[in-house]
Amino acid sequence: MSPAEVPVPVAIGPSTPAPTLLRKAVVEGGATIADLPQARALIWAGGPGEFPDELPPSVEWVQLPAAGVEDWFTAGILARHPDIRFTSAAGAFAASVAEHALMLLLAGVRYLPEHLRAGSWRQHEFFPHVGTLHGRTVTIVGAGGIGRALIPMLVPLGAHIIAVNRSGRPVTGPGIPDTVETLPAEHLARIWPRTDHVVIAAPATPETKHLVGAEELARLKPSSWVINVARGSLIDTDALVGALASGAIGGAGLDVTDPEPLPDGHPLWVLPNAIVTPHDSNPPQLRLAAFADHVGANVQRFTTGRDLLAPIDTERGY
Amino acid sequence: MSPAEVPVPVAIGPSTPAPTLLRKAVVEGGATIADLPQARALIWAGGPGEFPDELPPSVEWVQLPAAGVEDWFTAGILARHPDIRFTSAAGAFAASVAEHALMLLLAGVRYLPEHLRAGSWRQHEFFPHVGTLHGRTVTIVGAGGIGRALIPMLVPLGAHIIAVNRSGRPVTGPGIPDTVETLPAEHLARIWPRTDHVVIAAPATPETKHLVGAEELARLKPSSWVINVARGSLIDTDALVGALASGAIGGAGLDVTDPEPLPDGHPLWVLPNAIVTPHDSNPPQLRLAAFADHVGANVQRFTTGRDLLAPIDTERGY
Repeated sequence: MSPAEVPVPVAIGPSTPAPTLLRKAVVEGGATIADLPQARALIWAGGPGEFPDELPPSVEWVQLPAAGVEDWFTAGILARHPDIRFTSAAGAFAASVAEHALMLLLAGVRYLPEHLRAGSWRQHEFFPHVGTLHGRTVTIVGAGGIGRALIPMLVPLGAHIIAVNRSGRPVTGPGIPDTVETLPAEHLARIWPRTDHVVIAAPATPETKHLVGAEELARLKPSSWVINVARGSLIDTDALVGALASGAIGGAGLDVTDPEPLPDGHPLWVLPNAIVTPHDSNPPQLRLAAFADHVGANVQRFTTGRDLLAPIDTERGY
Repeated sequence: MSPAEVPVPVAIGPSTPAPTLLRKAVVEGGATIADLPQARALIWAGGPGEFPDELPPSVEWVQLPAAGVEDWFTAGILARHPDIRFTSAAGAFAASVAEHALMLLLAGVRYLPEHLRAGSWRQHEFFPHVGTLHGRTVTIVGAGGIGRALIPMLVPLGAHIIAVNRSGRPVTGPGIPDTVETLPAEHLARIWPRTDHVVIAAPATPETKHLVGAEELARLKPSSWVINVARGSLIDTDALVGALASGAIGGAGLDVTDPEPLPDGHPLWVLPNAIVTPHDSNPPQLRLAAFADHVGANVQRFTTGRDLLAPIDTERGY
């Protein structure tokens, strides 16, 4: 048997037996499942608290299960293993959140909440309220994994897309056509009156807090929907409630809120043009499936000696 | 002035003044708006009842505003003008209906109806019910304009698509990849247990009546959504109500019903896993915009001597 034919031993932790999806991903990636002392790689599906204090010298690579790995740095895990390559799950979970954003936007634009309350055939009353994304401008604030996954979903609907990132450098990637306009965040003020709808998909930082406030909402259209799948703090909730109640905008679709969880009795639960989903755009069962896809791709890269996806840079911290 | 520089005179009827969108489409298509006696073409935005009994001999082409033109044949309008080319609006309205189908499917799969009734942050209760189209199989019954418009919208969501047409000849068109599986309608019985979701987009004919009945519904999955944007008669309503009430399928998203309008008090209005929109997937304001796009394209083809879109074959009857 030539060395190339000996499957690479890969361990999965912490639970025993490991989830079937992960076992399948490792095997389909061309490796074999092994115990940790024999393994050349470790696929970790648990939190940082359960992570082994020591790893055997055979381990060259560790795949972590999170897209954001602050907690792993804080726990000192990467510092403890300077000679081991770590990869995160960055990018793996973006598709589900993007799909959720598309769902919220379409449901809003096509007047679904009112339809679901109708209980009666109110065709002529509803006709003027049924909108489309065809020929409309959708601005996506944040061109990270979620934004880049959402763009190809909006393109075939005939929407014009403005992507907003920090630099203004054109967003590129699979399924992203040249017709997408990229603008730097400093030009956001000019975008509000131009756009039909806004999807917030930017990280929560001190600069992005209340990125959408009373002034921004006032410049949108009475038909505009504001979608937030990032973090609640990016929108000024009180200003949003005001804009929804007055009809200054068409509606809001929120998978994240401020505060979160949104307390019972909050106006966002009762406003007819607000759709709230309880931060469930990426539920555990879809996370596991997406993580397994990511693991399969990375195991295949590892066994064939190619660059791994989402390598963690210990200097940069992500 | 060379003949090529004399703009082609085109009339728009019946309302005066013609809708701005249509006037714009004619002019942007390279023609000039004229009165009927001077016109070489007539863009008709009204019904067959208002259509002129006689057309001046200058008229070579008439653009009708409907995708299905049975009423125009019945009224004898095409027979009265055997030397004039007629075009329909076939294909022009498909995108809006396809967008609506996508909205209904996503809203169902992502459990939106229950979210809208929640009024409270029920994250852990909802998690297991939030699904995805990623990696799921969606069968589109009918590969006409709506089906062919829907396929490119589903592709970037990572769905596997089965298109069902009469012949089984591979469906092709812009944005339709080779990975789409095309099967002939005679194989439908094999598809029900294989598919995750079904979108009905086939014409209503004697053969398609109750295409989805008790037997078909029983073979779908408890997570399957059935979407109908074609005609109510393609689904056996009583069987559907039974499958929804028992949880045999995940849910139904219906823009068309049988009977239509759906009477007050019908079970489909109250079943929590039914979404009913009152045949408003293509409301008048979107129809006009889509018709104007179609007119613009056809006027441009007419003025440059190219084949027109959606020519009506008087032998075939559509």
